[in-house]
Amino acid sequence: MPNVERMGQTLIFRRSPVITAWASVAGKKEAEGPLGASFDLTAKQTKLGASTWERAESRLQALAMQRLLQKREIGKDEVDLVFSGDLLNQCIGSSFFLRNTGLPSLGLYGACSTMAEALLLSGAFVNAGYARRAAALTSSHFAASERQYRFPLGYGGQRTPTAQWTVTGAGAVLVEPQGEGPVIPMATVGTVRDKGIKDANNMGAAMAFAAYDTIRAHLRDTGRTVEDYDLIATGDLGKLGKAMVEALFRRDGVELGGRYQDCGVLIYDPNRQDTHCGGSGCGCSAVVLCADLLRRLRAGRIRRLLFCGTGALLSPVSVQQKRSVPAICHAVVIERQEAKA
Amino acid sequence: MPNVERMGQTLIFRRSPVITAWASVAGKKEAEGPLGASFDLTAKQTKLGASTWERAESRLQALAMQRLLQKREIGKDEVDLVFSGDLLNQCIGSSFFLRNTGLPSLGLYGACSTMAEALLLSGAFVNAGYARRAAALTSSHFAASERQYRFPLGYGGQRTPTAQWTVTGAGAVLVEPQGEGPVIPMATVGTVRDKGIKDANNMGAAMAFAAYDTIRAHLRDTGRTVEDYDLIATGDLGKLGKAMVEALFRRDGVELGGRYQDCGVLIYDPNRQDTHCGGSGCGCSAVVLCADLLRRLRAGRIRRLLFCGTGALLSPVSVQQKRSVPAICHAVVIERQEAKA
Repeated sequence: MPNVERMGQTLIFRRSPVITAWASVAGKKEAEGPLGASFDLTAKQTKLGASTWERAESRLQALAMQRLLQKREIGKDEVDLVFSGDLLNQCIGSSFFLRNTGLPSLGLYGACSTMAEALLLSGAFVNAGYARRAAALTSSHFAASERQYRFPLGYGGQRTPTAQWTVTGAGAVLVEPQGEGPVIPMATVGTVRDKGIKDANNMGAAMAFAAYDTIRAHLRDTGRTVEDYDLIATGDLGKLGKAMVEALFRRDGVELGGRYQDCGVLIYDPNRQDTHCGGSGCGCSAVVLCADLLRRLRAGRIRRLLFCGTGALLSPVSVQQKRSVPAICHAVVIERQEAKA
Repeated sequence: MPNVERMGQTLIFRRSPVITAWASVAGKKEAEGPLGASFDLTAKQTKLGASTWERAESRLQALAMQRLLQKREIGKDEVDLVFSGDLLNQCIGSSFFLRNTGLPSLGLYGACSTMAEALLLSGAFVNAGYARRAAALTSSHFAASERQYRFPLGYGGQRTPTAQWTVTGAGAVLVEPQGEGPVIPMATVGTVRDKGIKDANNMGAAMAFAAYDTIRAHLRDTGRTVEDYDLIATGDLGKLGKAMVEALFRRDGVELGGRYQDCGVLIYDPNRQDTHCGGSGCGCSAVVLCADLLRRLRAGRIRRLLFCGTGALLSPVSVQQKRSVPAICHAVVIERQEAKA
């Protein structure tokens, strides 16, 4: 581990903060997918008993946080700081969960990259001693997202072949200076990239360039190669965006092969579930991280992961104004404690 | 300075990162107000030559950042990290400015508290060595904000007496480990507070409780009193919210008096400018900080400032769903270098 806190866009966490607990809550469709058995909780109803989808999204966050605290056997007053955000306008999913909980919190907006951004900040804050326990928390909800970004569900609009399905779910991760669990030795901050793609139903393509940029920056900063990772996982590029990242690296003579996966591809079954290019949303990478990737690390099936949260920074207004889709990707290294050696 | 990185909700920056430069850009109405002569740049046209108000808001950010770099005589590749956010849905004001600049960036959402949140994170990152130069950047635009949150401007809706006027402007602040300028020795992270206020045109009242909470937490954590500050400045409570904070402290036997001001009250002239309770928006505290408060520190008119960014975490959807207005406040201590002793 180099004796600096920063190399290029990459932050070095020399004390290697530990992910001591994680929890995931997912919706019905996600429960029917390939990771269905791995979520901590699944909701049968889209509204989780709330009166609106927006309130339901806040409940997803509340359930994820509650489960996280149960697993770690601590109270919420033992969490020093929460980094959170979501896709709803003005991040009301997060704010309405957090209100009156007494949890000190810093709000984020990174579109679907928010879990990686929150994890990066949690790692940075715990490493620097600003928090003894920091939580990264994010959510998305298919129905709340659909009516905000696209059409009212009752309209029954057809989805284009490149469209993705917003995941209903929330993930929560707890980071501490010591303990059992995988560690965060470093993380790479992304830049906003816009390659001029204007199709809001093809977010995977817009985000692929951002993912490629950030992974390259990470490898350049650290002197590593893709072979140093057992798994590189992007957040929600979907089938098409994933193929684009593979093609971009292939152009550089790098074959990503089986060590590259995408959370948006992992979460649904393309044959049984009609989700076109796959999953998306703040909840997508969050629940796949918590239900699948961190479990693989704990089980020793992978030793070192590059978790790359990807976000399409569009809004319905920017789409109506016929603007292109800027995108960002933040990458967090997560590895087994013995892999540090 | 205590030998810890954290006390309660308060982060301690033992290396006291320095604010080495700052810049402000404001609109026409702001230029006509009491701080008119103090902005670095003022825009005559609401659209700044752009085709939409949303694009104009991104231009405000671009101008603020450009001016910041000019003042410090550095290029943008010498900035390691930008913390930014705005009020537009999905923070497109920030994303469309940042795209393809190559600036590593972390997106924030703290409603109108974003400048304080960005400054807190810039201080934390520079103090920990994660960045040699971090920039805090935020903006708001009256017309873009009005049509998003309230009514189309052409509709000519009447404003209620408690309404505030969204500031058109952007502020940018540069934080470095060393140099000339005021320092950031500590900052206090807020919690989301909701006292059940449902009037979206009375954001000052909703935010007043959050400001009171965070200032109290800050004083409790640090063992300081209000007399330790030459100035406590809230972000955009306006006339009514400011009076509420004064009343809440008075109930505790604390008379804030002349050492307490509000950026939303400072920015417009209540007699000449028809802005009801005063200014609001991400740009409000940002431009008042950069055009007024930091100048007062530099000139020695004040030695120690508690800058309290306040944010109303409502959305048009939460208002339509008849929900109350959660609010947050983050506080950043800014002081002259000799005041550290």
